[in-house]
Amino acid sequence: SRVRDLGVIPGTLATGTLNAITDVPGVRVGQTTIDDGNELHTGVTAIVPAGFATGLPTAVAVGNGYGKLVGSTQIDELGVVETPILLTGTLSVFRVADALLTWLLDRDPTATSLNPVVGETNDGFLSDIRRRPISPQHVFDALESASSDLPAEGCVGAGTGTTALGFKAGIGTSSRQAAGGVVGVLVQANFSGTLTVLGTPIPARDVLGVPTGNSCMIVVATDLPLDARQLGRIARRAVFAMGRVGSDFAPGSGDYAIAFSTAPSVAAGAPASAAAPASGAAPASAAAPASAAAPANGAAPASGGVPERELFSLFQAVMEATEEALLNSLTMAHTVTGFRGNTRHALPHDVLLSRLRTAGVLT
Amino acid sequence: SRVRDLGVIPGTLATGTLNAITDVPGVRVGQTTIDDGNELHTGVTAIVPAGFATGLPTAVAVGNGYGKLVGSTQIDELGVVETPILLTGTLSVFRVADALLTWLLDRDPTATSLNPVVGETNDGFLSDIRRRPISPQHVFDALESASSDLPAEGCVGAGTGTTALGFKAGIGTSSRQAAGGVVGVLVQANFSGTLTVLGTPIPARDVLGVPTGNSCMIVVATDLPLDARQLGRIARRAVFAMGRVGSDFAPGSGDYAIAFSTAPSVAAGAPASAAAPASGAAPASAAAPASAAAPANGAAPASGGVPERELFSLFQAVMEATEEALLNSLTMAHTVTGFRGNTRHALPHDVLLSRLRTAGVLT
Amino acid sequence: SRVRDLGVIPGTLATGTLNAITDVPGVRVGQTTIDDGNELHTGVTAIVPAGFATGLPTAVAVGNGYGKLVGSTQIDELGVVETPILLTGTLSVFRVADALLTWLLDRDPTATSLNPVVGETNDGFLSDIRRRPISPQHVFDALESASSDLPAEGCVGAGTGTTALGFKAGIGTSSRQAAGGVVGVLVQANFSGTLTVLGTPIPARDVLGVPTGNSCMIVVATDLPLDARQLGRIARRAVFAMGRVGSDFAPGSGDYAIAFSTAPSVAAGAPASAAAPASGAAPASAAAPASAAAPANGAAPASGGVPERELFSLFQAVMEATEEALLNSLTMAHTVTGFRGNTRHALPHDVLLSRLRTAGVLT
Amino acid sequence: SRVRDLGVIPGTLATGTLNAITDVPGVRVGQTTIDDGNELHTGVTAIVPAGFATGLPTAVAVGNGYGKLVGSTQIDELGVVETPILLTGTLSVFRVADALLTWLLDRDPTATSLNPVVGETNDGFLSDIRRRPISPQHVFDALESASSDLPAEGCVGAGTGTTALGFKAGIGTSSRQAAGGVVGVLVQANFSGTLTVLGTPIPARDVLGVPTGNSCMIVVATDLPLDARQLGRIARRAVFAMGRVGSDFAPGSGDYAIAFSTAPSVAAGAPASAAAPASGAAPASAAAPASAAAPANGAAPASGGVPERELFSLFQAVMEATEEALLNSLTMAHTVTGFRGNTRHALPHDVLLSRLRTAGVLT
Repeated sequence: SRVRDLGVIPGTLATGTLNAITDVPGVRVGQTTIDDGNELHTGVTAIVPAGFATGLPTAVAVGNGYGKLVGSTQIDELGVVETPILLTGTLSVFRVADALLTWLLDRDPTATSLNPVVGETNDGFLSDIRRRPISPQHVFDALESASSDLPAEGCVGAGTGTTALGFKAGIGTSSRQAAGGVVGVLVQANFSGTLTVLGTPIPARDVLGVPTGNSCMIVVATDLPLDARQLGRIARRAVFAMGRVGSDFAPGSGDYAIAFSTAPSVAAGAPASAAAPASGAAPASAAAPASAAAPANGAAPASGGVPERELFSLFQAVMEATEEALLNSLTMAHTVTGFRGNTRHALPHDVLLSRLRTAGVLT
Repeated sequence: SRVRDLGVIPGTLATGTLNAITDVPGVRVGQTTIDDGNELHTGVTAIVPAGFATGLPTAVAVGNGYGKLVGSTQIDELGVVETPILLTGTLSVFRVADALLTWLLDRDPTATSLNPVVGETNDGFLSDIRRRPISPQHVFDALESASSDLPAEGCVGAGTGTTALGFKAGIGTSSRQAAGGVVGVLVQANFSGTLTVLGTPIPARDVLGVPTGNSCMIVVATDLPLDARQLGRIARRAVFAMGRVGSDFAPGSGDYAIAFSTAPSVAAGAPASAAAPASGAAPASAAAPASAAAPANGAAPASGGVPERELFSLFQAVMEATEEALLNSLTMAHTVTGFRGNTRHALPHDVLLSRLRTAGVLT
Repeated sequence: SRVRDLGVIPGTLATGTLNAITDVPGVRVGQTTIDDGNELHTGVTAIVPAGFATGLPTAVAVGNGYGKLVGSTQIDELGVVETPILLTGTLSVFRVADALLTWLLDRDPTATSLNPVVGETNDGFLSDIRRRPISPQHVFDALESASSDLPAEGCVGAGTGTTALGFKAGIGTSSRQAAGGVVGVLVQANFSGTLTVLGTPIPARDVLGVPTGNSCMIVVATDLPLDARQLGRIARRAVFAMGRVGSDFAPGSGDYAIAFSTAPSVAAGAPASAAAPASGAAPASAAAPASAAAPANGAAPASGGVPERELFSLFQAVMEATEEALLNSLTMAHTVTGFRGNTRHALPHDVLLSRLRTAGVLT
Repeated sequence: SRVRDLGVIPGTLATGTLNAITDVPGVRVGQTTIDDGNELHTGVTAIVPAGFATGLPTAVAVGNGYGKLVGSTQIDELGVVETPILLTGTLSVFRVADALLTWLLDRDPTATSLNPVVGETNDGFLSDIRRRPISPQHVFDALESASSDLPAEGCVGAGTGTTALGFKAGIGTSSRQAAGGVVGVLVQANFSGTLTVLGTPIPARDVLGVPTGNSCMIVVATDLPLDARQLGRIARRAVFAMGRVGSDFAPGSGDYAIAFSTAPSVAAGAPASAAAPASGAAPASAAAPASAAAPANGAAPASGGVPERELFSLFQAVMEATEEALLNSLTMAHTVTGFRGNTRHALPHDVLLSRLRTAGVLT
């Protein structure tokens, strides 16, 4: 079950229709799962936004740079992503990047420079990571199968072999409506700490053993016309939100968030009129608590496609959606035995619910 | 009462003797409180480490750069602090920096370039901030009164007029033992969100009204021989820990952490032998869960005065100490009525305890 | 004489009307010079852009962070400057920032948070820097006297006591037309190295003695609708251009560039139609060498108010204007004897011209 | 010929024995050249430092992030390189990174996480870049053939197909002695601008046609015990030095410098005694002009393995060595006709010498 179907509802904002990153118009997700029932539990997850080839405003936040994220320096410089964003296992990251290049070069016969963006976490506890089993076809399949449906969650794609907070985890997604648009999040959860649900700690060691895991990739999409600087602020909050589910922000964890906007209005050469809907969005001023909460600083000006004061609700949205996506990555996963017989148990829903009832969080 | 005296104990590591930043040998704190019983509620808090004049390894982490932190670019470049670190109210930050210069120039008759470090948060809700009431003497008094005792907390010094999470807040401090040394934290709490204690939300709006507040300064000290890069990693965890007490990481919040080491061993020109105690520290390997928690990445090498794997316990230490310092800033504060009759109520201890008992967190 | 009047013409682009930062519409400069004919040679230079109070897109590039630049973290976060930009001597930087606050608070009776931006270089060789002689009135005078005329250059304002490349230097300015707009630069030159003019080294030691000096502040203005990210790219090129006149980029030099745009179109909430003129600017595509020079990468997309490919001519513009502004800071200066009888000689024009003729650079 | 053999001598410091990056003890270079005499002109250059597997202090400086540098975020976080550093053509960068992984995994049967560092520039003018012709064996050959001899320069390895400043360029190397150690540089030159030799512009367009080219990778090695922060300062000067040979720092140029130290003394867990030789190095204080040039700031403390004041001579060393390496990349190259019949002419030595004699720079 998704965590919300268990009655756990992080935050207060309304979700999008699917409660997924695919609620952002034009964003599609495709995944390839490699599970041989034995020593291979890995895969590829592709986030494919419409219009990537012309560049979408994008920023990367580095929570802890212990990871092999491909493509970050050019995003920092130019403020755009120009390819789909792929996730996979650590040692396969360059094979996946190269396969993405193949796919892109086939689509654009004149391209001679491209900046593929591929993130990874280490699924070596459950999968024979040194085999680097991802083939180009696996990558093409993820890209070609991308759809705007609710993405599969749990032990799927790049989350097939990942674990988080001591439990089996994987891919999770969620979304929130805010400031007249939508913020969607997809995570590849693979980090350590003590699982915390709505404030209640549920230590895996009490239930299943010692927590392990070592990284988290977070992809954030929005249809609001944020510029790269503003998206960087959003991305940092996605990292902060890892704390809400109990991340210990360990030194060996590669924690990154990549946030992009599908709105063309702040991209180079875009028709100026395209920016109008956002700046005129009525619900945004209704989200006014930002100015109430920060009276002293609230009036300060800033550059960007959305008035800076409206970021308040977007920050809330990205933190809520990240929290819920991380929880979904756990509740949607199932127990897996893999490499060398290592087993990672799923979070037992009955334990979760029992603990939350005891804590008075659920009734 | 300090929060620990109420029975609230964040985390599992042992505190230092005083449970304060002054547990770090050589670190002293002095404060000047300006409270005219009417429209002025502000002040100065000075953190004065021994040996500052020869430079101490230091890093700044910017959680949200909406603040007027003085001195950060030179710390980024040289990796050292060369003056005491002062905290005050927003519009007084330059007067305080200039007074700190006066104090330093008087002590060093040949100095012609110095990099004072002064942080601020906006205490304009309770204090007539536009008056900029801090005089040089106020600054000198804070510096000259610095002692290694337990610092006063709550409505004192730079925390005299600050509020956090909807309640009156101020200065708080705490410490933890880890890796054979100590990590001490002092905070000036002034940010928004929903107060969360040991996972239990205690919304101010239920109790006292709408939360406001807009920034947080966190100063971290340690006696372990960390270099500036490692201190940057520590500082970022201090910011992350704001989430544990319910920060909403609002766009108008100037959230910074400054972390420094009093150990001379990794500073320029230090005797190489000085580094020995730390690398030989037996308790550090006892803190070995880092390697257990991150088996895949744990073996990776890194530069710095302390083996990177030992940072695991230091990260835990700084997050626990920041959480407790923030809670102390609340539980040690009292209700204040100030500028324009604005009132900010203290967190009622009985409400706090009642909520925690209901949640089953306290018995 | 300005260097161009001596026949030295850096680069190929056309200057603006005044060949000054004040060629950018709405940008005014005011200066206060403190020269007691004896031990005080310092001052204030104010760059006052129209519309600063509503925020102008801005970025800071740190070439070498050994300096006390006030205001940088908030610019990094919000991408705007919201005050005039002031320059002064090192130890006076906080007094100047505080006086700027006074001036701003007087103009805005409701402001409770402002981010003054003040840069500095160390004029202690010629001025008794420890006296911190800048009063609030000196700052007000600089601000109130700001005009759109050609700014005074050489030993004036914040450049009264500075020296560069072994010679007396000071304030210099220049501008270039590019991409349908104008790029203006003002420098406070105070750094070390070997003076190089149009590629010809003119070592001060051959002429006048040992070079000293230790910092450089560069302010860049443009009327083109660049966003903060793009302005960061521009600002970095201003730092790079210091190499053209022979900077040795010494470790003790605080080298910063601050670049801002006066165009409202990419700021938050600006009318979308305001962006139109720039994207339709015909001369920009005439500046097409960018695409010729970088065929492989030239087509890549990026976010920002001006198409990324047009930055090629803006980079050229800012480097040429910075080079010429730095040379003006030297050729417009006169020999000064100051603190403790220290003397710094002006660059002798006849020596300059003779060397350039010998080198075949001038005829 | 190497440029020094033509009589062109950049700077004043003495070179190492070979005037090459391999003058740094323990640093070896291996290269694979792919030149089919027709449409393929590309290759691999490997810089292989002894002790890489235990981590060497390292920093990356981003001059312009328009490039696909693999491995930078982890270097930023941990301050070390843990693999050889490879250079290649743009679209092959991920194949090379994956082959490097293969080579490393074969050598370390327990490794499950590695951070390969691979840089690239775009050699698509002379080579059919879309074919991605680099095989794993090409990479292994470069790694296995690494030696401490003088590396081949010009049209070799990753420089087989690159061009710079309008001329055929490629790989170049140089070194300088400073502060009791050596600084070595190796470049893959592929950028635009106007060739400038010892200050004398030698525009390719006058000689051979329109300049093109779009990136520059610079690798810096030293045996001095610098920490990662200090290496970052060194790396930035390497980028600055591109200006000395006429780089226009174009927007589409991926300009990066990677600097590492082979000295174990500042790495984690290193024997403290190892740091002794450097801090006691007599020649360093002889390089004292740093303190002379920056009297005001020169006394400020900083953290790191080498006293900050000694960086002055290292900055000079890296700028001189980068300048000479870039010139070697040109003078050692020969004219190449490649992809689609495109031709890039070598810099004619007679033209170079004639221009320099006319300018009076050579006699």
